[in-house]
Amino acid sequence: MKRLNEILSKIEKIDYSLTEETQIRLDNLTKPQGSLGKLEDLAKHVVEITRKKSPDLRNKIVFTLAGDHGVTEEGISLFPKGVTPQMVHNFLEGGAGINVLARHVGARVVVVDMGVDADFAPEPNLILKKVAYGTKNFIHEAAMTRDEAFQSIENGIEVFEEEFNKGIDIAATGEMGIGNTTSASAIASVITGASVKDVTGRGTGIDDDSLSNKINVIKKAIEVNNPNADDGIDILSKIGGFEIGGLVGIILAAASRRVPIVVDGFISSAAALIAYKIEPEVKDYMIASHCSVEKGHIIVWNYLGLEPVLDLSLRLGEGTGAALAMNIVDASVKILNEMATFEQANVPTQVKGAKQK
Amino acid sequence: MKRLNEILSKIEKIDYSLTEETQIRLDNLTKPQGSLGKLEDLAKHVVEITRKKSPDLRNKIVFTLAGDHGVTEEGISLFPKGVTPQMVHNFLEGGAGINVLARHVGARVVVVDMGVDADFAPEPNLILKKVAYGTKNFIHEAAMTRDEAFQSIENGIEVFEEEFNKGIDIAATGEMGIGNTTSASAIASVITGASVKDVTGRGTGIDDDSLSNKINVIKKAIEVNNPNADDGIDILSKIGGFEIGGLVGIILAAASRRVPIVVDGFISSAAALIAYKIEPEVKDYMIASHCSVEKGHIIVWNYLGLEPVLDLSLRLGEGTGAALAMNIVDASVKILNEMATFEQANVPTQVKGAKQK
Repeated sequence: MKRLNEILSKIEKIDYSLTEETQIRLDNLTKPQGSLGKLEDLAKHVVEITRKKSPDLRNKIVFTLAGDHGVTEEGISLFPKGVTPQMVHNFLEGGAGINVLARHVGARVVVVDMGVDADFAPEPNLILKKVAYGTKNFIHEAAMTRDEAFQSIENGIEVFEEEFNKGIDIAATGEMGIGNTTSASAIASVITGASVKDVTGRGTGIDDDSLSNKINVIKKAIEVNNPNADDGIDILSKIGGFEIGGLVGIILAAASRRVPIVVDGFISSAAALIAYKIEPEVKDYMIASHCSVEKGHIIVWNYLGLEPVLDLSLRLGEGTGAALAMNIVDASVKILNEMATFEQANVPTQVKGAKQK
Repeated sequence: MKRLNEILSKIEKIDYSLTEETQIRLDNLTKPQGSLGKLEDLAKHVVEITRKKSPDLRNKIVFTLAGDHGVTEEGISLFPKGVTPQMVHNFLEGGAGINVLARHVGARVVVVDMGVDADFAPEPNLILKKVAYGTKNFIHEAAMTRDEAFQSIENGIEVFEEEFNKGIDIAATGEMGIGNTTSASAIASVITGASVKDVTGRGTGIDDDSLSNKINVIKKAIEVNNPNADDGIDILSKIGGFEIGGLVGIILAAASRRVPIVVDGFISSAAALIAYKIEPEVKDYMIASHCSVEKGHIIVWNYLGLEPVLDLSLRLGEGTGAALAMNIVDASVKILNEMATFEQANVPTQVKGAKQK
């Protein structure tokens, strides 16, 4: 807990002292005021997070954390648990969706074993932070002990700090773990107060019967474990997952380092909820990447008061939506840094009746 | 008209013969079926447009066409007409929004004078295709003659063909012209049948009084000119603009060459409407880039049956939204080309009850 407390003590409110100056700069660029919409909002947000007038988002890292879930015993996923370690190999080989999209946007993927139910041979590109060989089946007992919950968060912090020392300007969350939408829906229901049904979707693509079973499994898990909605660690330990705990650590560590953190899909957003429960200020360091097909996702964004950048009907996870959104955030900062002002371009400014802003 | 007729004779229906094969490939990639949502739809669409199994969208061109509008006499814009030539210089210097975003996505900007009310010294990066020094004020008379309308389209075709010979895999439309939302709203109203009020927005950011004036100007222009809603050339000549005519030519030429054309903001979408009126098949070669703050934009997309890729509250034009969307389309094709299949990655496939698709 020492490491977590250290990180928490470093998380400050984001800083609005450069906001007005940034707005003036945006308004002086060669375009009608406000005409780059959300790009302008994103650029301001990055300035507020980083405390830099001209932030540079060159070093982009996607953290893709993997973990297994004991609740897969209940038949809540379309895929067998053995997919998790094979997908880790796929990440390392560069053949997964996140590899393609990270390459596309110039980001590096950091792959972490947080709790996969398989052993991996040492590989230079795989970070081994395994807390245990998968969680327990949380319809019978807590997914992990309270100590393991702390451990998973601290492992995530370590992963972030190691990469931060190499250079990170913007980070994205990502995950892989068969069964983890079940955990994410349980977390979303407990924290947002929405009904289990309203935050439970088809995950990898289950049919109506399996969806109905999944909802019952989640309801039972909440009933059996009775997590305290105000205690992020309690929620993580009882109905969470190791990759989710790792992402909580990464989100908190990013905020402590004033690094914008682009939150990916539904599972990542569940980690964001737990991070928010642990330290509410962390929310302002987050950028909501996209709105997933998983129906609970928008409920989580609304609870956090975040507006997603993209809406591409994605539901893959891994960090795929966050990688694409990261690219838009990078574009927004380039607008701020690279566009000419009216004066520089010798362009006449407006002549009459601007709309009240 | 010879050049236009030649191009029209080459526009065929897009080709669905590779669609099933592409769908099978997408379904065999290491992800739950359909989980990359709109990226999968876009990849299929590009295959259908290009007739290539593994399209490569390396060569990206944004066509940014400039023209002036006589209707600026009526005070419908916040900016004076002199902004148009200065923005052309800004495009050439690389300081405008489209320059920044095109660089960001690896696209080249082709800047064309279609009808700016100013003379430009010859410059290697400026293509001179001026039809006239701005349109006439269309509340009194037709914006241009029917011959000039044809000429503007043919000039656009020439611009596209010259660039096509150097290599284009995907094209985007863009424009600059003070006053051109007024023309675009008039076109949108005539073609979609929506009321002038419903398709008229604040353009560069005019206040309520100016908006009310703008609506009256458009109503009068339509009344005075009485364009034939089924004749694209008639609409272009009476209430269009030279940059809009040029974009009509670029859109038609792209379709004739099986090049996907990403349509930018509201003014570009008005050009898309005219191209569609001239040759309805062209619609299937278009990709709707984004949904603008200009209220008529979504009405045009709905009329064309196109779903925009992005929604970032943009209203700048120039090709800015199209450049960002082009990047997403490029990502979609990389997913198709670069992701590993289940077999390649040795990942077990699904075990039970998939949802009916």
